[in-house]
Amino acid sequence: MELRTMVLGHFLVVSLALNAGLLYRDYCNGRRKSQDVFTFNGDCKNESLVTKSAFLETNKAPLPSNAIISEVIDLDHGDPTMYERYWQEMGDRTTVIIPGWKFISYFSDKRKLCWFLEPEFENAVIRLHKLVGNAVTDGRYMVVGTGSTQLFQAVLYALVSPNASEPTSVVSAAPFYSSYPLITDFLKSRLYKWAGDAHKFDKNEPYIELVTSPNNPDGSSREAVVNRDKGLLIHDLAYYWPQYTSISSSPADHDIMLFTVSKSTGHAGTRLGWALVKDQEIAKKMTEFIVLSTIGVSKESQLRAAKVLQVLADSHGQKDHFKENEPFFYYSYNLMAKRWKQLREAVKNNKLFSLPDFPQNKCAFSGRTFSSQPAFAWLKCEGETEDCEGFLRDHKILTRSGKHFGESAKYVRISILPRVEVFDQFIERLASIN
Amino acid sequence: MELRTMVLGHFLVVSLALNAGLLYRDYCNGRRKSQDVFTFNGDCKNESLVTKSAFLETNKAPLPSNAIISEVIDLDHGDPTMYERYWQEMGDRTTVIIPGWKFISYFSDKRKLCWFLEPEFENAVIRLHKLVGNAVTDGRYMVVGTGSTQLFQAVLYALVSPNASEPTSVVSAAPFYSSYPLITDFLKSRLYKWAGDAHKFDKNEPYIELVTSPNNPDGSSREAVVNRDKGLLIHDLAYYWPQYTSISSSPADHDIMLFTVSKSTGHAGTRLGWALVKDQEIAKKMTEFIVLSTIGVSKESQLRAAKVLQVLADSHGQKDHFKENEPFFYYSYNLMAKRWKQLREAVKNNKLFSLPDFPQNKCAFSGRTFSSQPAFAWLKCEGETEDCEGFLRDHKILTRSGKHFGESAKYVRISILPRVEVFDQFIERLASIN
Repeated sequence: MELRTMVLGHFLVVSLALNAGLLYRDYCNGRRKSQDVFTFNGDCKNESLVTKSAFLETNKAPLPSNAIISEVIDLDHGDPTMYERYWQEMGDRTTVIIPGWKFISYFSDKRKLCWFLEPEFENAVIRLHKLVGNAVTDGRYMVVGTGSTQLFQAVLYALVSPNASEPTSVVSAAPFYSSYPLITDFLKSRLYKWAGDAHKFDKNEPYIELVTSPNNPDGSSREAVVNRDKGLLIHDLAYYWPQYTSISSSPADHDIMLFTVSKSTGHAGTRLGWALVKDQEIAKKMTEFIVLSTIGVSKESQLRAAKVLQVLADSHGQKDHFKENEPFFYYSYNLMAKRWKQLREAVKNNKLFSLPDFPQNKCAFSGRTFSSQPAFAWLKCEGETEDCEGFLRDHKILTRSGKHFGESAKYVRISILPRVEVFDQFIERLASIN
Repeated sequence: MELRTMVLGHFLVVSLALNAGLLYRDYCNGRRKSQDVFTFNGDCKNESLVTKSAFLETNKAPLPSNAIISEVIDLDHGDPTMYERYWQEMGDRTTVIIPGWKFISYFSDKRKLCWFLEPEFENAVIRLHKLVGNAVTDGRYMVVGTGSTQLFQAVLYALVSPNASEPTSVVSAAPFYSSYPLITDFLKSRLYKWAGDAHKFDKNEPYIELVTSPNNPDGSSREAVVNRDKGLLIHDLAYYWPQYTSISSSPADHDIMLFTVSKSTGHAGTRLGWALVKDQEIAKKMTEFIVLSTIGVSKESQLRAAKVLQVLADSHGQKDHFKENEPFFYYSYNLMAKRWKQLREAVKNNKLFSLPDFPQNKCAFSGRTFSSQPAFAWLKCEGETEDCEGFLRDHKILTRSGKHFGESAKYVRISILPRVEVFDQFIERLASIN
C-alpha cells in the first residue's frame, strides 16, 4: 500500500507539471513530499540520465514497472496522444526533411509585419480554414506564436494601454480554462490582472473578456457575457474543429481569434498556434510581444506543422493516393464519437456521476447533425461526494478539480484524448466504481 | 533622393523589428512614416502575399530592385547568416527527418524536472561543452528555452521573491545588451525592474546582475562589478565560443549560465537556448516559467539542434568521412579572423573611426594565442561626429546606436555575422568614407 502511494505520488508530480503550470503551485508547495519519496533530488542533473529500471532501483522498488504504471490513469492534462495512430497510418506523407543550412536567419519574410511567420505555414492554415469553414481568413493579419498560450499573452499586451493607471481586468465566464488566471498573473504585471468569473464582473472600467468556444473545460458553445462598453474580446477557438463540435454555416468572424495545432492535429509538442486579427495595430503589438518574449517562433515547428496541415487538407481531397486512408476529420470525429459513447455508457449505469448534455446541431462541414463531443469531459460527482478529484484519485484516476476552473470541487475535468489503451482502461475503471 | 530615403526607410523598418524589439519602439512611434511611405498597410494581411516585384509595384517605384536593395547594408541586428555556407558544405549530414506521428506529446521525459527537454538535445549539448571545455556540465540542471531571451526571463522569475514589497533591481555594466532593459520592463512586472548600469548601482537591497561575457556589444571579457551582499548573478555566455574568443583553461563554473544555438552554430531561426543551473529550486522555477509562458519548447527545434550539434562535434573528431570538411570551430574562427582583419584594415586607414583593442590570450580549446574577434564591432566615431548611427545611416549602413546600450551615441554596434557578399560590401563602403 505504501508503494502504491509512492507511485501515485510520482504520477501526480508528472501530471502537475503540465497545462501551463496550473499545478506547479501544488507541486512547489503542498505536494513536494510525493516527489521527495521518489528521491528526485538528483533528477534533471546531467549525470542522472537514468533508464526506467535505474529509476525504479533508485526508489528501491524492484517490481515490474509496467504493472505499477498501468495502475494510475492520468487524465489531468489534455495531452492529445490519441492522434498518434492516425499520423502513423499516414506513413511518410507527413515526414518533414530539413537540411542543416536552411532557416538559419531570424527572418521568414522581411516584407511582412509578422516577419517570423513562414509563408508555407500561413498558406497551409488559410487552406485549412477554407476547407473547414470555421473562421474568416480574408482581410486578417496572421500572427504565429509558440502555442496559443503565448498568443494569449501577446493579445493581453496588445489590448491594454501601457500608460493606464490601473491594470486592465481580464475575465472569463466560469468554468474557465484553469491556466488563464495563472498566465495572467504570474508576472504580476501592472498592465493587466485576472478578475475572475465574467458573470460577476460589474465594474464600469476597461476589461478584456476571454470567450472560449467550445469551452475548456465543459465543452459548451459560448458567447460574450459581460457586453459593456470598454470591453475587448479574445475568442479562443482552440477546440472549434469538426471532430469536437458542429461547425456553423457562417465562419467565425471575430476581431481576435486564437487557434493551436495541439488540439486541431494533435501536435502538442510542436508548440505552435496562430491568431487571426482584424486590426493592424493589434497585430503589430502582438508581433512586438513575441519579439520581446522569444524573438519569433521556431521555423522547424512551422515547417512541420505546414506539412501536417497540407496532408490533412489533402486527405479530404479524395485524391487517389489517399484512398486507403480516412480523411482526418472523419477519422477523428468517429474516434471522439466512439469515446463519448463509451463514456456515456459507463456513466449512465452509475448514479455516482453525471455528464453535461449538448444540443444537436447540423455541421456545415460534414453535413452531419450531432451533439458536441468535447476534448474534455466535465464530470460531476453526484450525491454527497464534495471532492470529486480526490474521490477519483482514490481510484487512481487523475483528473483536474473543478475548483481550478472557478467552479465547485464536485466537478472534475477529464481528458478524452489519451492513447486508446489508457482510455479503455479508464472507462473500465470508471464503470467499476460504485 | 526621395526614393533613396524611401528605400532606406524600408530597411530601417525591417531592421528595427529584430533583436527583441529594441527598435519596435521607434518603429511604433517615431518612424512610422517610413513605413507608411511604403504603403505597408495591406501587408501581413493574408491576401497580400506579394512577390518582390509586386512589392515594388505597390510602391510605384519601377526601378531595378537589386540595385536599390544592395545600396543599403543592414548590420543593425546579429542575424548569423555567415554560418549558412558551412552547413551547406556539410551536405546532408545535418539533415533532419521527422515523421509526422512522432513527438506529438507535450512530454519529452516525464521523469525529469525539465520534462520538455529532449534527451537527444541534452546529450548533444553536454558533448559540445565537454569538447570545447567552456562550461561545467556535471552536476548541473539543464533547462531548455525558446532562445536565451526566454531563459533570461525565466531566470528573473526564478530569482525574485514573489512576495517582495519592491521589484528586484536588474543591472548590467554599460555598455549592456540593448534588449535587457526592454525585456525586463515590457510587462511592467512588480517582481523586477531594470535599474541600469551596474557601475552606478549603489543601493543596499537585493539585485540581479547580468554578466555578459564576451560582452554584447563591445566584446570585452567580463566579471561581476557590483559585488555586494544580496546580489544574484546571471552569466550570459552566448558568445563564449572559440570562434569569438579564447576559451580559458578552466571551464566556466557559475551558478546560472545561459547559452544559445543562434550564436554558437548560427541557427537563429531555431529559437533555442539552454541554461546550466546549479541550484535545483532555481531550475524548477525556471521550468515553471517556461511552462506558464509557452508550455515547453518546440520538439522540432530541439531535434534539429541536436543533430547539428552532433555533426559539429563529429567534425572535430577527425573521422574519415569528414576529411574533406574543416572542423566547425576552425572554419568559423578563420572566418572571424579574416573579417576582423578586413575591418581593422578599413578603420586603420580612416581617422573617422576607431575600434576597441583586445588582449591576447591562449585558447585552451585550440591552443592558439589570439585577441578576441567578437560577433559585433563596437565602433566609435572620432572627432566631432556625435551621432555615429546617423552618420553611417547617411552612408546607408544601418547599425545600432550606442545610446541603446547605455552608452554614448558616438558608438555604434555593427554585426560581423552577415553573408560574405554583405560583409565585403560593408568593408568597401566603410573604407570609402572620409
